[in-house]
Amino acid sequence: MKLKSLQDLFVDELRDLYSAENQIIKALQKMIKSASSEELKNAFEEHLQQTKTHANRLEQIFEELDLSPKGKKCKGIEGVIEEGKETMSQAEDPSVCDAALIAAAQHVEHYEMAGYGCARTYADTLGIRKAAGLLQQTLEEEKETDEKLTQLAEEMINQQAASAGNRNT
Amino acid sequence: MKLKSLQDLFVDELRDLYSAENQIIKALQKMIKSASSEELKNAFEEHLQQTKTHANRLEQIFEELDLSPKGKKCKGIEGVIEEGKETMSQAEDPSVCDAALIAAAQHVEHYEMAGYGCARTYADTLGIRKAAGLLQQTLEEEKETDEKLTQLAEEMINQQAASAGNRNT
Repeated sequence: MKLKSLQDLFVDELRDLYSAENQIIKALQKMIKSASSEELKNAFEEHLQQTKTHANRLEQIFEELDLSPKGKKCKGIEGVIEEGKETMSQAEDPSVCDAALIAAAQHVEHYEMAGYGCARTYADTLGIRKAAGLLQQTLEEEKETDEKLTQLAEEMINQQAASAGNRNT
Repeated sequence: MKLKSLQDLFVDELRDLYSAENQIIKALQKMIKSASSEELKNAFEEHLQQTKTHANRLEQIFEELDLSPKGKKCKGIEGVIEEGKETMSQAEDPSVCDAALIAAAQHVEHYEMAGYGCARTYADTLGIRKAAGLLQQTLEEEKETDEKLTQLAEEMINQQAASAGNRNT
């Protein structure tokens, strides 16, 4: 796709995010199975439902623009997810794996924050208000998820992973 | 590398960041050449110097830990950079290319925020205060860069890219 205008860049970013959300839905299903902590499983379950809503919001925006959401594979999130998988496969203790899962999820959240931040700013400049509103809503939810994960890591999971060090050495 | 403890995860995250910073140094040099706006070139120049400082800080931490910073290739940032390159190659207008460069840089910044956030939290839990302080310093600088880029996009570059749409259609 040739990018001749901000509108083209906007559509390209939306397609990138749509591909990202669909890759994240698949990844989260595996992450739920890999998590040991019930609290972490629940946080991922909740985020999976939210991610499906985010994909639906993108579909709504594409419908308004009369365009297809498909047509791009998000290589950025592919690399981020691949890296997360690799780290988790190296974790030899359930609590270390949980800490690694949180780190992987936070890298994913931040990728999305960047994407939704850019897309929302493009929509604002282009005066596409409804899309800007929907994108802002998702952006805020991604930030909230990131904060919840930080809290879970700081208050519980990282402490458990630190104790694993004492057990495993 | 087997990850048996939070300490192992901490070192793995630091190596990931060290590889990321070195990939970003190379990418920024190309981004400076690709940018048309003087303001954007300057912002990238400044961030390049800052990125070198961030890599040095990681080297300091590794020296304290008596470990090598090498040994991991950051696949996450590789995907993010690759995607940015692809988008820029599709941009057919200098101001659209500048807007795409900002978006690419903000995806990079967010990747780093996630990594430094996790590493700083691990250092806190492990009680490695000096490292926690250095990581926090870098984290704050990454956030500041991200905010500066948002400002540059909103106040100038995106408007120019939006006008390109009128010229090019």
